[in-house]
Amino acid sequence: MKEDRYEIRLSGSGGQGIITAAVILAEAAAIYEDKFVCQTQSYGPEARGGKSKAEVVISDCEIDYPKVIKLDMLLAMNQTACDSYFYNFKPNGLLLVDSTLVKQIPTSRVVSLPFTRLAREAAGKEFVANVVALGAIAHFCPVITQKNMEHALLARVPKGTKGMNRKAFKAGVKAAQEIQLDLLPRSIISAEVEEV
Amino acid sequence: MKEDRYEIRLSGSGGQGIITAAVILAEAAAIYEDKFVCQTQSYGPEARGGKSKAEVVISDCEIDYPKVIKLDMLLAMNQTACDSYFYNFKPNGLLLVDSTLVKQIPTSRVVSLPFTRLAREAAGKEFVANVVALGAIAHFCPVITQKNMEHALLARVPKGTKGMNRKAFKAGVKAAQEIQLDLLPRSIISAEVEEV
Repeated sequence: MKEDRYEIRLSGSGGQGIITAAVILAEAAAIYEDKFVCQTQSYGPEARGGKSKAEVVISDCEIDYPKVIKLDMLLAMNQTACDSYFYNFKPNGLLLVDSTLVKQIPTSRVVSLPFTRLAREAAGKEFVANVVALGAIAHFCPVITQKNMEHALLARVPKGTKGMNRKAFKAGVKAAQEIQLDLLPRSIISAEVEEV
Repeated sequence: MKEDRYEIRLSGSGGQGIITAAVILAEAAAIYEDKFVCQTQSYGPEARGGKSKAEVVISDCEIDYPKVIKLDMLLAMNQTACDSYFYNFKPNGLLLVDSTLVKQIPTSRVVSLPFTRLAREAAGKEFVANVVALGAIAHFCPVITQKNMEHALLARVPKGTKGMNRKAFKAGVKAAQEIQLDLLPRSIISAEVEEV
């Protein structure tokens, strides 16, 4: 059976723009790709520790359960987020981390890119690291095109910041394009499933 | 049994800042009031028509079901939103509408305030009508203090817009303070429940 839901969790610390990135991702999928989308953030006691987490579920059909069941992609913008939210992956789900801030990585099926450093270099501001990450997600996510993600981004950012955001986004896309996803190890479990 | 969940739905058209308002509301409750919060937006075909809807569920306990079950408050920033999302109220749930844009009101248990006009008059920009509405919500919502809502607001708005946002917020609080909620009709159903 084809898995219809595409599920992404974005995580990091408060102030890293995790929720903003999730809203942009959701809008790219819903408004520009014509998908059904459910975007959530749940806050518990961990929110007081500055942890931030948001989820996006994308589907061609109406979504019954709005939260992540099995992850296709986890973005971890710092070590704590990576430690806390690396679970419930689909076989061949992808972990995406900020290599500037995440040093201990729990899987070999990972793309590690220096989002924070790229944000500083490409746009002059570290706080657009979330937008650099969105660029990388746009490259790796099969259900949203790069063009539609960029549309959704530029429709939501404050006036006067479009140039900076576009630079950050492009830097993320470019860095992701240099990764050869096919060379990453694949889950044995899913290889078996594919053979059936 | 005391009803633990406090549930709010915010609705309007795309561009009215509905999702931003919901995120601020959620952060006020979670980070400043120490509550459990789940904040969602679901996008379906209606998103392409420019409709925007977001929900916030606030509780003292962990939240199992993240979407609205029975509304305590509905904000409708335009007529279409009011027509579409006025359902599933608790007895004595409150409808809050922008009187500048909503003319046909489906209940007598309503607070109708000119959010858009107040935004223009108090802050010089109609697009902060969502922040005026947040001010009114802060006044009427028993689980978030006005002070904490304002903290959450000012922590999230872009640099250089704090003054404008504060003015809009205060205008919403002030307009709400002039409403005598006790004079609104109450549901007969809930009156019976209270007598038991």
